[in-house]
Amino acid sequence: MQINLPQIDLPRVVIIGCGFAGLKLAKTLDDKLFQTVLLDKNNYHTFQPLMYQVASSGLEPDSIVYPVRKVFKGKKHFHFRMATVKKIDEANKNISTDIGSISYDYLVIATGAVSNYFGMANIENNALSMKSLVDSLDLRSVILQNFEQALNTSDLKERENLMNFVIVGAGATGVELAGALAELKKYILPKDYPDLDIRMMQIHIVEASDKVLSNMSPHASAKSLKFLKELGINVWLNTQLKDYDGALATTTKNTIPTKTLIWTAGVKGDPIHGINATLDRSNRIVVDNFNRIGSSNHEFAIGDVAAIASENEGKGHAMLASVAGQQGVRLGKNLNALARQKDMKAFQYTDKGTMATIGRFRAVVDLSYFKFGGFFAWFIWMFLHLMLLIDFRNRLVVFVNWAWSFFKYDRGIRLIIRKVKRTDTTS
Amino acid sequence: MQINLPQIDLPRVVIIGCGFAGLKLAKTLDDKLFQTVLLDKNNYHTFQPLMYQVASSGLEPDSIVYPVRKVFKGKKHFHFRMATVKKIDEANKNISTDIGSISYDYLVIATGAVSNYFGMANIENNALSMKSLVDSLDLRSVILQNFEQALNTSDLKERENLMNFVIVGAGATGVELAGALAELKKYILPKDYPDLDIRMMQIHIVEASDKVLSNMSPHASAKSLKFLKELGINVWLNTQLKDYDGALATTTKNTIPTKTLIWTAGVKGDPIHGINATLDRSNRIVVDNFNRIGSSNHEFAIGDVAAIASENEGKGHAMLASVAGQQGVRLGKNLNALARQKDMKAFQYTDKGTMATIGRFRAVVDLSYFKFGGFFAWFIWMFLHLMLLIDFRNRLVVFVNWAWSFFKYDRGIRLIIRKVKRTDTTS
Repeated sequence: MQINLPQIDLPRVVIIGCGFAGLKLAKTLDDKLFQTVLLDKNNYHTFQPLMYQVASSGLEPDSIVYPVRKVFKGKKHFHFRMATVKKIDEANKNISTDIGSISYDYLVIATGAVSNYFGMANIENNALSMKSLVDSLDLRSVILQNFEQALNTSDLKERENLMNFVIVGAGATGVELAGALAELKKYILPKDYPDLDIRMMQIHIVEASDKVLSNMSPHASAKSLKFLKELGINVWLNTQLKDYDGALATTTKNTIPTKTLIWTAGVKGDPIHGINATLDRSNRIVVDNFNRIGSSNHEFAIGDVAAIASENEGKGHAMLASVAGQQGVRLGKNLNALARQKDMKAFQYTDKGTMATIGRFRAVVDLSYFKFGGFFAWFIWMFLHLMLLIDFRNRLVVFVNWAWSFFKYDRGIRLIIRKVKRTDTTS
Repeated sequence: MQINLPQIDLPRVVIIGCGFAGLKLAKTLDDKLFQTVLLDKNNYHTFQPLMYQVASSGLEPDSIVYPVRKVFKGKKHFHFRMATVKKIDEANKNISTDIGSISYDYLVIATGAVSNYFGMANIENNALSMKSLVDSLDLRSVILQNFEQALNTSDLKERENLMNFVIVGAGATGVELAGALAELKKYILPKDYPDLDIRMMQIHIVEASDKVLSNMSPHASAKSLKFLKELGINVWLNTQLKDYDGALATTTKNTIPTKTLIWTAGVKGDPIHGINATLDRSNRIVVDNFNRIGSSNHEFAIGDVAAIASENEGKGHAMLASVAGQQGVRLGKNLNALARQKDMKAFQYTDKGTMATIGRFRAVVDLSYFKFGGFFAWFIWMFLHLMLLIDFRNRLVVFVNWAWSFFKYDRGIRLIIRKVKRTDTTS
């Protein structure tokens, strides 16, 4: 069965994935030059940089996602379909999905990344991840369910298991989540669970390298390490997770009893099964400067799933929202140019800076000539993230929530809506 | 195993259920006189009157629920436990739950109501209901998934199935939901699904009696019927649903092909299994004027699950949030009085009026000496519901969402977060 679409006399671009890359591309494509079809398994775009706030009860899930159809309303030759892609047949320029098949003139793979457990099946089966909105909601429920359970056990060992949290990986996601958990510990949980000794709650970060936020400047790494320690977080550098059975985390340095281990230590590309392309060590599709797969002028990959071979000693750009967004815009302009018989331009990343926040009042910001941390950085972080949210309504709701947390030292959203059933692995 | 609780020298009141009745009771009980234990299967209180707005993408779920622990923070002898009650042993004053057992001095059953399908298993298995937050979220997903699917079928009959909505019952829930769906049809869906002929979307209300909102005044019934018709809703009065197999709704008057039938036509009490009490025809626990079960001074029932025998020809008060809340307060005062060796007072319901809203700008309000409808009623409805929300943060977020919908003719929250898998019953 074919996916139901108007047949018009314009070349069809099919984009798979509505993350930052796919969204920006679809926005940039000229409606007069192309019929654009965007496929995604969800009907929303997720603002991934704030997922940790959903996990830690700071924001509602609806605040950080945005309905795809709303972004493109009024664009005449744009069509969104909620679909999961099964297979690509490049010879016939055809895509099979769970809702039917679709032909293309141009194909763009923008499927992003998934957690990389480097083959450690035991960890994969028992760890929680934070790669989707549903993951974040599940994590929120697990955290709160842990405290409900801890309250109800008189077995101190069991209680320790429930109140220990291990985050693996001290990249932005790991560090920001740790900071948010520390805030929960400090301001919220003692009030919610007066019967529990909240000092028992321990937050651990396990990091294989010798610093936190290793993607950022040495200044930011040092400063954020200081912030994490001030918040009472146990930072284990030069330490690797070896095993996790759902009850005990075994690292190269120690063992930590915990029911909750959150894996943020690695991601890999999530390419479509059967695509005829070279994959690098991180499972990313190797592309050239124009994001072309092989030498094709019809198949492209952008965002986390793509690695531009000439960059970073063959490893491609870092997997960042800003890279993905810029690649989406560049490819959009290139396809528009192609259709107008003009030349494409090679992708060039403009680093506008990186930042991370570690709890209340603390953040680090790296700009090219200026690196700073502390309250002012935190303020800038807040303002920028508010502005980056895709629409005014979301911004207002997020602002209300943040202002509330700020003045009341409280978080409104501590609800176990999706109950998560976990296999019981009592040690 | 016993539920872990501090042992203190105060009588223990155990309240089962944190709806309006349980919440108000727990708030009213004097912390110096009682140890209060509140049990609920969720860790939040739901503002049920706005659930239809979650179902119709008007509000996020987090806006209409409120974490129980937050309500009672600072109350020293109050304890919340997330638990599902299994059985009550009145002889030994003991309750069994899924997290352990708990003894009581006073027991209050405030478990509310569930949908009543009057024994029609086929309808029960295939209909959607709106009795919990999770129900409402599921309904939101189903509505949006229907349109995604409708877009992708060229079979006109299948499309009609997906775009027909049948609401059974023209009480407040049914009427308000129908109005919200009509607004979706008018303002949102044509923009989101320009490829679909939205005129195919038909909203039906099936009502067994001869009027809508039969709990309200004749004026409100007539006015709201007019409003429903203005919105293009098909109202079938004097009509009963006979059968629904998931694809075809059969009523005493016609058959309507539909994949989505929402049951709001009846509720019944949801008492605890094995409680030694008289149940009335609606499965409610029969209580006296003091909400006592039998002649016990230790076991009580309040809210939807309780029917005061002397009221309304033995049928008890209507199942309304306002009745439940007032019973909670009265019983709280009565228990406080008992502990101070004073007399209890019989429950007396104060009717402050009822209201319902039917889409944008339209509402009906019944006060004892003044009944009105239209724009002003709608404005009053909005203001009152904002004020009734339990805290300022929720109020602000809801206000932002409503103001946004009002000025932009748009709803921000059209997200399929919980995908609902439905048994396929293609006709």
